[in-house]
Amino acid sequence: MDANLAKTIEDMQKRLQILEDKDALWTLMNRYCTEVDNHHWEAFANTYTEDGVMEVENWGPKRGRAEIAKAASCEEVFQGVIHSITNLHFEVDGSDTATATAYLTLYVTPDVKKPEANYCWGGPYRFEYRRTPEGWRVAKQHLRKFFAIGEDTEGLFS
Amino acid sequence: MDANLAKTIEDMQKRLQILEDKDALWTLMNRYCTEVDNHHWEAFANTYTEDGVMEVENWGPKRGRAEIAKAASCEEVFQGVIHSITNLHFEVDGSDTATATAYLTLYVTPDVKKPEANYCWGGPYRFEYRRTPEGWRVAKQHLRKFFAIGEDTEGLFS
Amino acid sequence: MDANLAKTIEDMQKRLQILEDKDALWTLMNRYCTEVDNHHWEAFANTYTEDGVMEVENWGPKRGRAEIAKAASCEEVFQGVIHSITNLHFEVDGSDTATATAYLTLYVTPDVKKPEANYCWGGPYRFEYRRTPEGWRVAKQHLRKFFAIGEDTEGLFS
Repeated sequence: MDANLAKTIEDMQKRLQILEDKDALWTLMNRYCTEVDNHHWEAFANTYTEDGVMEVENWGPKRGRAEIAKAASCEEVFQGVIHSITNLHFEVDGSDTATATAYLTLYVTPDVKKPEANYCWGGPYRFEYRRTPEGWRVAKQHLRKFFAIGEDTEGLFS
Repeated sequence: MDANLAKTIEDMQKRLQILEDKDALWTLMNRYCTEVDNHHWEAFANTYTEDGVMEVENWGPKRGRAEIAKAASCEEVFQGVIHSITNLHFEVDGSDTATATAYLTLYVTPDVKKPEANYCWGGPYRFEYRRTPEGWRVAKQHLRKFFAIGEDTEGLFS
Repeated sequence: MDANLAKTIEDMQKRLQILEDKDALWTLMNRYCTEVDNHHWEAFANTYTEDGVMEVENWGPKRGRAEIAKAASCEEVFQGVIHSITNLHFEVDGSDTATATAYLTLYVTPDVKKPEANYCWGGPYRFEYRRTPEGWRVAKQHLRKFFAIGEDTEGLFS
């Protein structure tokens, strides 16, 4: 292969890798939401690195997978949990770390047969990621609360 | 072209194809929402395969494009319809079938000059897709209702 | 490089470029929302072309970056501003113009320590873009209001 051709192909592979890293982080973030929404607390915690940190305003930081799984499991009281994530924007540069900003709208419902009795709140998310031998993982989550609709009947988010 | 180079290029083409399949499904899903939100019931039904199935909790399954168009057309009574879709995650493997999970937040408004008189509800979506000669189509939709805000004045979703 | 190989590589580069243009527009749209949500009125206006037009139903068109920055700055009264954007679908063809449709859900909160005192509204977005020497910019935004939840205590959106 001549040098020009090798360079052209290497350049295309780097461009593909950036798009694939963003796609892999997109998959990670959807798994992140789906696992907790399905009450899979350990699988949720495993989307973090082993030394991962989850910061939710009013809760204080949770450090490591065991603490994170335990904190998330307070949502056990809700039959319906929806972490709806928007404006998910990744900063990726080909290295083994990345960051993201996003917005969360969370809907929690004690009894999905009574969908009108729900609590909705949300705010800005910030994420840090690390590429590990098992793939991308969340190294840090920070979440603020900017709005709320309905009543926090379980008193978990106030 | 030598064998190594041919292999390198074939590999890149497969990686590109995966990203393009996800992009095509993204386009399909946005068309899916836009057509129904614009009251284009037949165009909406045509985003399904001919034997497509639409399952909405409380409605029972609708089978085939004619039934799907008819079921969707009940939303005629709303001037404003917004199927807001988030956490759209595709499972794609290079074959002619694919699946997705997502969340729906639906806002329906009888008279958009009175935007405060709306009904909002949503829940988890599951999709199955098939690649057809006309491109990707929805083979099956399943939707649950987890939350609701406001009053279902038209009694369509209860 | 033989002609077949050159053709194969050129084709792949075009396909990559389409995906990268969509990714760049995705980045632009997230910056568009983040800048205004962070009260960076000038940086927000700079996501437009110099002759950009921002149309918000009830507001009338704002033309050029100075008018756009001034109009956006009315949101100064809200500590919490979240432009949550969904169904973001780009029409891109390899040229220097592009369009998009999307939905907005906007949450504004005068005092984030009282997140329950917020106003939420939204509707369909349409965008036109132009590729400039600085990258993609918004040439035109059009936004309609289809739904509202809560009370517009500041009277800015009615």
